[in-house]
Amino acid sequence: MSDKNTQSLLENIEFPNDLRRLPLESLPQLCDELRACIIKELSDNPGHFASSLGVVELTVALHYVFNTPLDRIVWDVGHQAYGHKILTGRRHDFHTNRKLGGIRPFPSPQESEYDTFTSGHASNSISAALGMAVAAQQKHEQRKVVAVIGDGSMTGGLAFEGLNNAASTPNDLLIILNDNNMSIDRSVGGMKHYLHSLHTSSTYNNWRYRASQRLTQWGWMTEERKKQIISFNNALKALLNNQQNIFEGMHIRYFGPTDGHDVIELVHTLQQIKEMKGPKILHLHTKKGKGFEPAEKNATKYHAPGKFNPETGEILRSNCEGMPPKYQDVFGNTLLELARQNSRIVGITPAMPTGCSLNIMMNEMPERTFDVGIAEGHAVTFSAGLATEGLQPFCNIYSAFAQRAYDNIIHDVAIAGLPVVFCFDRAGLVGEDGPTHHGAFDMAALRPIPGLTICSPMNEHELRHMMYTAQLPDQGPFVIRYPRGNGVLVDWQCPMQKLPIGKGRKLKDGQGCCVLSIGPLGNTVAEAIPKAEQQAREEGKSLEVAHYDMRFLKPIDEEILHHVGQHFSHIITVEDGARMGGLGSAVLEFMADNGYTPRITRLGLPDSFIEHGTVAQLQHIAGIDKEAIIEAILSLP
Amino acid sequence: MSDKNTQSLLENIEFPNDLRRLPLESLPQLCDELRACIIKELSDNPGHFASSLGVVELTVALHYVFNTPLDRIVWDVGHQAYGHKILTGRRHDFHTNRKLGGIRPFPSPQESEYDTFTSGHASNSISAALGMAVAAQQKHEQRKVVAVIGDGSMTGGLAFEGLNNAASTPNDLLIILNDNNMSIDRSVGGMKHYLHSLHTSSTYNNWRYRASQRLTQWGWMTEERKKQIISFNNALKALLNNQQNIFEGMHIRYFGPTDGHDVIELVHTLQQIKEMKGPKILHLHTKKGKGFEPAEKNATKYHAPGKFNPETGEILRSNCEGMPPKYQDVFGNTLLELARQNSRIVGITPAMPTGCSLNIMMNEMPERTFDVGIAEGHAVTFSAGLATEGLQPFCNIYSAFAQRAYDNIIHDVAIAGLPVVFCFDRAGLVGEDGPTHHGAFDMAALRPIPGLTICSPMNEHELRHMMYTAQLPDQGPFVIRYPRGNGVLVDWQCPMQKLPIGKGRKLKDGQGCCVLSIGPLGNTVAEAIPKAEQQAREEGKSLEVAHYDMRFLKPIDEEILHHVGQHFSHIITVEDGARMGGLGSAVLEFMADNGYTPRITRLGLPDSFIEHGTVAQLQHIAGIDKEAIIEAILSLP
Repeated sequence: MSDKNTQSLLENIEFPNDLRRLPLESLPQLCDELRACIIKELSDNPGHFASSLGVVELTVALHYVFNTPLDRIVWDVGHQAYGHKILTGRRHDFHTNRKLGGIRPFPSPQESEYDTFTSGHASNSISAALGMAVAAQQKHEQRKVVAVIGDGSMTGGLAFEGLNNAASTPNDLLIILNDNNMSIDRSVGGMKHYLHSLHTSSTYNNWRYRASQRLTQWGWMTEERKKQIISFNNALKALLNNQQNIFEGMHIRYFGPTDGHDVIELVHTLQQIKEMKGPKILHLHTKKGKGFEPAEKNATKYHAPGKFNPETGEILRSNCEGMPPKYQDVFGNTLLELARQNSRIVGITPAMPTGCSLNIMMNEMPERTFDVGIAEGHAVTFSAGLATEGLQPFCNIYSAFAQRAYDNIIHDVAIAGLPVVFCFDRAGLVGEDGPTHHGAFDMAALRPIPGLTICSPMNEHELRHMMYTAQLPDQGPFVIRYPRGNGVLVDWQCPMQKLPIGKGRKLKDGQGCCVLSIGPLGNTVAEAIPKAEQQAREEGKSLEVAHYDMRFLKPIDEEILHHVGQHFSHIITVEDGARMGGLGSAVLEFMADNGYTPRITRLGLPDSFIEHGTVAQLQHIAGIDKEAIIEAILSLP
Repeated sequence: MSDKNTQSLLENIEFPNDLRRLPLESLPQLCDELRACIIKELSDNPGHFASSLGVVELTVALHYVFNTPLDRIVWDVGHQAYGHKILTGRRHDFHTNRKLGGIRPFPSPQESEYDTFTSGHASNSISAALGMAVAAQQKHEQRKVVAVIGDGSMTGGLAFEGLNNAASTPNDLLIILNDNNMSIDRSVGGMKHYLHSLHTSSTYNNWRYRASQRLTQWGWMTEERKKQIISFNNALKALLNNQQNIFEGMHIRYFGPTDGHDVIELVHTLQQIKEMKGPKILHLHTKKGKGFEPAEKNATKYHAPGKFNPETGEILRSNCEGMPPKYQDVFGNTLLELARQNSRIVGITPAMPTGCSLNIMMNEMPERTFDVGIAEGHAVTFSAGLATEGLQPFCNIYSAFAQRAYDNIIHDVAIAGLPVVFCFDRAGLVGEDGPTHHGAFDMAALRPIPGLTICSPMNEHELRHMMYTAQLPDQGPFVIRYPRGNGVLVDWQCPMQKLPIGKGRKLKDGQGCCVLSIGPLGNTVAEAIPKAEQQAREEGKSLEVAHYDMRFLKPIDEEILHHVGQHFSHIITVEDGARMGGLGSAVLEFMADNGYTPRITRLGLPDSFIEHGTVAQLQHIAGIDKEAIIEAILSLP
């Protein structure tokens, strides 16, 4: 850090207006203070860390040069927006970041007028910002619109669709490409190679900007001439570097690459290109984790490190020994185990090798694992292509991101009945990442698709059995959804066995009332039932509640449902997915189709977006925690 | 057409093996015959026309050079694959094309081993072919894989995701870019400009190929050197043309542009690049409708022209006077009407201005309508950006293609509750385009999304009322789904009125039994009920069936449902969407939640992919036609 004045600059900034009153030369100090603030807060209150450190200078420069909130900044993904939050009225509340009722995990228009668009899923910033820029033109408003997008997000097809449209629709959009050669893990793909090869001396670039400015002042440089000269310059660079400029190719003016950590230079650059007409892209090189050495060295580890020592970087973990493993690690280890036995197995992830633990297989079998970039649609269709040739793809996507691949699942996999195994991690409520990240809709949206097998394990053993079963011959498309976080079994490494497709299991006998659950909430049900029974006994009532783990949402276990329809007057269904259209609805449909008339109570996610908080808090809000299940049982007549 | 031998070549070709026995010089004649065959067949049995004419030479050259079906050809979209079908064992059955039980509308692996992947939705070919190419490598199989993709499809994000991944994964994929500056309407976007600017003399290109071949034969040209030289060449071209090569920028070797109608030259070119290692792209210029002058002049009109005179090109229309209009035209005209009154309205289409009739508004208000290319995800997120700034977007997407934008609807629109109006055309069964095009899943998949209003009009007046209501202030995200084809009212231009949100309407009183319908099937119900009542009377029974047009799937009309739950012992629900999770399930959920116990029969699309045929045939198969409704009513106890 540079020398500081004893006076804190950051303490006097509530909103960007305060920032814009500072002299330019004080911005490096402000950046230091902002960075220190982020390190201090994040070390104690966990969240996304390294990304925000990487854009401290950019954040300060943007709010310094642009007249926010009148001018619009759209942050792609929003991992990196903590500095933005701190500078836009949320410094005092920042310690509540990601906590129930506190500051939201990603930029959110519901929280601040400085947050212009919903963030959380990658690659949407250019499309959204283009909409804003076009709207400004239509309404003859003079505002500027800036999209800030990382090189990882640039691999998403949506970003390309946005670029393609930006190139042909009249607009003055500025796209800032924050290139740190990272998304969460290392960036992959042609775009990465491409960006890596874009390097020209910043002296040359500076000279070019200045010359251009001078010529404009002299009245010689028209917009059209400017465009031609830039094109020619880039073509010249391309020739010298033996490479091509994609953005210029698409008629989007390209500037850079530029050092994203020189805040003074950044301000100059932004001031220079701010008023230029037409769509343009500014390419910045930044370092994820910048200014905090441990994070600079291992940005993936410090993407969301949990609590850490702000001096040493040491990550403070609660003692995990003797704890059940994470579901993702059970997936990762089990897949490797299966892949050793079944040579047809290949693993596919859209940019989440660490997040989904596919890296376990990747380390041992790099040639059989594919990180395809932030590209969920492609991940699915690519998997489908692999499956047509007899390979057995395991395609792992976070449930909420799999929404991006809904059509690919229908059109490219299900219609032909290809044996792709989908492992949807982070299904159900995910906690602090909030509404953009909850895997709420997968079961309801996938259930109507013909030919899918859809299941969810109650514990780690079941996950292993399901993965084993899914890769056996002739299983067709197979969806396994499991949650974020830890399982329930310390001894998870059981021998694997084939599960009968579409068959659940009885966990407990009962009379009159039964609970049908799917997935890990079955464990909560298993705890709730004895409590409810005891409470009933204490009130002098006799209560014996049966419990079935349905395992499969589709095909649903008709044998169990016939039995239940015939023998129970009350059924409670429990699931960590949308109440509309999920397991509960499947049970209702079956009972109606077969003429049974039990009373059915459905517990699941309500018809509203669930905000952020701990999973336990959110399960309580959603009415799917132990208390809610006990109450549902006891309130039966 | 060129002079022919009296002997027909085509008649002796059952499979590509027969084709590959022909001498090279006879291929132009074969192309003429194939083209004539397509014109003749299509003039009488309607289908997609102009696209297939444009790739006659390419189709012949591909099957001539590549060892199909061992080598894989993946046709993007599949509009253009009729020549392929005729050459691969389906010539004799081609007169059954698109008919129930006949040849499928698009390439389909269920139909032929020459059809390598499900086609119908744009932009998936590169991803699928990459999967096949990677699988070939993993299995040490020597097969070649070719993706054929149009310039329109290249605007889809999925194609870019595929390219990005192809650039960084070891593979020998050949991508053929069939550039006719068209998708269905004219191509749009930066990619179009870009492709348009890629022009170098074919002499230069030929010289380059030949020189390269010679150097390879002499042992001087290694793969690495070849790559460097090509890069340098393209950079040189770029400098000369003042433009950049996107594909080379992404490290995908680029060849072209080349005349796609010179079959001999095409064969040479394909033979030359066939054995090259690494991903590569061959850029062809073709003319949509080639060889049939009326189609060359107006490729959009002849994209799928219906029956026409094969001599003159005159399109034979049944007399439409006095017929109800198409729903799409009611949409188009009504939107223009509304846009004249409400200056906030803008119209967005992903490459379907003619197909959805947004061109009606586009003609009068070009600056307020946006064709964003084949890019459904972007269409939605761009609309969301427009909505954040106070504009009122009407985003029109075919229902089946809107599956591509499922996450955008959730993440970019619904979470923030933005007032985007979605008009989903081609909802329900679409007929001859088959399973890839039926709008089967929209209601079931969208219903669980919080905050959406979802409705479907029973007729043109209702569509107009819904569109009017949707654009009133503070309506939030609003989905209107309506079918392909004609409405039911000749006098469709009624004054528009505000509908109460979430309110249905009673169409007929009854006792004991009622039918709840949503959308245009309500008309079928209205016909079926009197028939059923009459039939019952003839059998001496008394039957009076009530009928409600629910209008809104969400929020559902709870007043009607309470009334129905209280007063009717039997309810039949009717919808042209998936039976799982749609209106019927919503009614079941309501009844269960409120303690009503009517018998409920749900009519809707079954849990299987419905093939192609006329809408009437398919409604019969799906059990949602008049007979099925009558039967459902009469089979009630």
